[in-house]
Amino acid sequence: MINKLVEKIKKTKAPIVVGLDPMLSYVPKHIIQKSYEAYGETLKGAADAVWQFNKGIIDHVYDLIPAVKPQIALYEQLGVEGMQVFQKTIDYCHEKDLVVIGDVKRGDIGSTSAAYATAHLGKVTVGSRKYSAFNEDFATVNPYFGIDGVQPFLDVCKQEQKGLFILVKTSNPSSGEFQDRLIDGRPLYEYVGEKVAEWGAQHMGEDYSYIGAVVGATYPQAGKMMRKVMPKTLILVPGYGAQGGKGADLVHYFNEDGLGAIVNSSRGIIAAYKQEQYARFSPENYADASRQAVLDMIADINGALQEAK
Amino acid sequence: MINKLVEKIKKTKAPIVVGLDPMLSYVPKHIIQKSYEAYGETLKGAADAVWQFNKGIIDHVYDLIPAVKPQIALYEQLGVEGMQVFQKTIDYCHEKDLVVIGDVKRGDIGSTSAAYATAHLGKVTVGSRKYSAFNEDFATVNPYFGIDGVQPFLDVCKQEQKGLFILVKTSNPSSGEFQDRLIDGRPLYEYVGEKVAEWGAQHMGEDYSYIGAVVGATYPQAGKMMRKVMPKTLILVPGYGAQGGKGADLVHYFNEDGLGAIVNSSRGIIAAYKQEQYARFSPENYADASRQAVLDMIADINGALQEAK
Repeated sequence: MINKLVEKIKKTKAPIVVGLDPMLSYVPKHIIQKSYEAYGETLKGAADAVWQFNKGIIDHVYDLIPAVKPQIALYEQLGVEGMQVFQKTIDYCHEKDLVVIGDVKRGDIGSTSAAYATAHLGKVTVGSRKYSAFNEDFATVNPYFGIDGVQPFLDVCKQEQKGLFILVKTSNPSSGEFQDRLIDGRPLYEYVGEKVAEWGAQHMGEDYSYIGAVVGATYPQAGKMMRKVMPKTLILVPGYGAQGGKGADLVHYFNEDGLGAIVNSSRGIIAAYKQEQYARFSPENYADASRQAVLDMIADINGALQEAK
Repeated sequence: MINKLVEKIKKTKAPIVVGLDPMLSYVPKHIIQKSYEAYGETLKGAADAVWQFNKGIIDHVYDLIPAVKPQIALYEQLGVEGMQVFQKTIDYCHEKDLVVIGDVKRGDIGSTSAAYATAHLGKVTVGSRKYSAFNEDFATVNPYFGIDGVQPFLDVCKQEQKGLFILVKTSNPSSGEFQDRLIDGRPLYEYVGEKVAEWGAQHMGEDYSYIGAVVGATYPQAGKMMRKVMPKTLILVPGYGAQGGKGADLVHYFNEDGLGAIVNSSRGIIAAYKQEQYARFSPENYADASRQAVLDMIADINGALQEAK
């Protein structure tokens, strides 16, 4: 799957991923109203609105991008109905040949991580049959448990030819509270990054490992350093756009071949129609605004990469 | 909810929690067969088997214990059908007046943590209505993001009178890989513990804070130290039984009043009928074996606490 992802990045010339993180407040009123008319002001109604919203965006951007990253929390808050839409969204993205990164940030002791790995990347055995529960292509993983919390994910990835992005340095303001603590003069996230590189070296695709890392766009110095520590690791970069990251800040997350990083934007793309910059798009044309925001993001990042050459 | 939990611990004289972590391999054949006959070898069939299994155990132990801790990963691996059973299990435990600790180990950047907090402890607004998605009483939280990943959980807990258990030192063999890294001569988990105590002090119930901590039974020295660092924090202690922890190891997790900790056992209780010690119970009587295992665990822990006096 890492090879497919890298191929798709090359083909689309778009090292970006669209975060499908549908807060209800992003969904235009005409969609909300239709769903509530059909199912009432219920979790089913809300979940249907999210699904219609997602579908509109996917239909308008799938040809421009290699991958999407649905954030499961936004679906989980709508309960079982939300989880159904999470699954439906993944299936639909696969129909459109998009790579799906499940932003689930799971991690636990070994036996429990094995169940999470099965849930998101593997297959569960039911009698004589096997089923995929959510069937993402990649999943994000929290490393706090150390290797035996990560190993079951590695095992399932090897078996299913899928991949991971392990949290190294997250994009939020307080990420330094524990991640930047100095151990022998170096921040914790560097040690985590070294481990990711080590685990990654044992799980290589063609050019990149299928064990990637998450390093936030909001910490360019960390990105620059981690690029060196993890040369064969694809870096998933959240925090672009709404969280403050810009293309020019991100050139050092990439290798000299222009690969090695994939930058996520969620709000900035899916709620583009709410921004001043895209005020010419009406709520009815929210998905056109998203398409324009994707084009602008690609131009911003590729422009910055060109300039840095 | 922390006051209710402490009251229930006092009333049952059982500082324990039963982990409802139903691997399919734990479910006796007669249950599996019946569910597959009804729904086929499908995720629905597997989920039904898990539900019947859980219900049997809950019916046989609910009067002995203050709380249960369903591990969501085991449900997640059965997809949407599994999530339905997760919800059904929580609702049923509430009918039996049990406190429910959702072992979800969520944690993300602020806006995403807010969605997780809503999903598991809060209410989501849908038009003019509000709904609980999964409605646990407590949730476990991963601290790797620092305070702004935790704050949304704190906010929802305050609003809904619910609580958290934040991972400090986990029970698995490799937990030291990052958690034991020395920062100015002290392990990372101590810093996390100090933060938990600090956050907890701002969120006090009557005797204990509603912001608790997770410290594994497999690291008694960490338990002893963390008891001092976090005097008003209820410690959730996983790793008893199948993972190797014993009552005698755990006395220092408790305060002198015999409170302050709640010890979890999952496999050791719910799959008791598979152990040599409980071989007198047939698979048909698996829930009676679980009841006996609960009684034995209570006796083991209370005996150790008595002896330590």
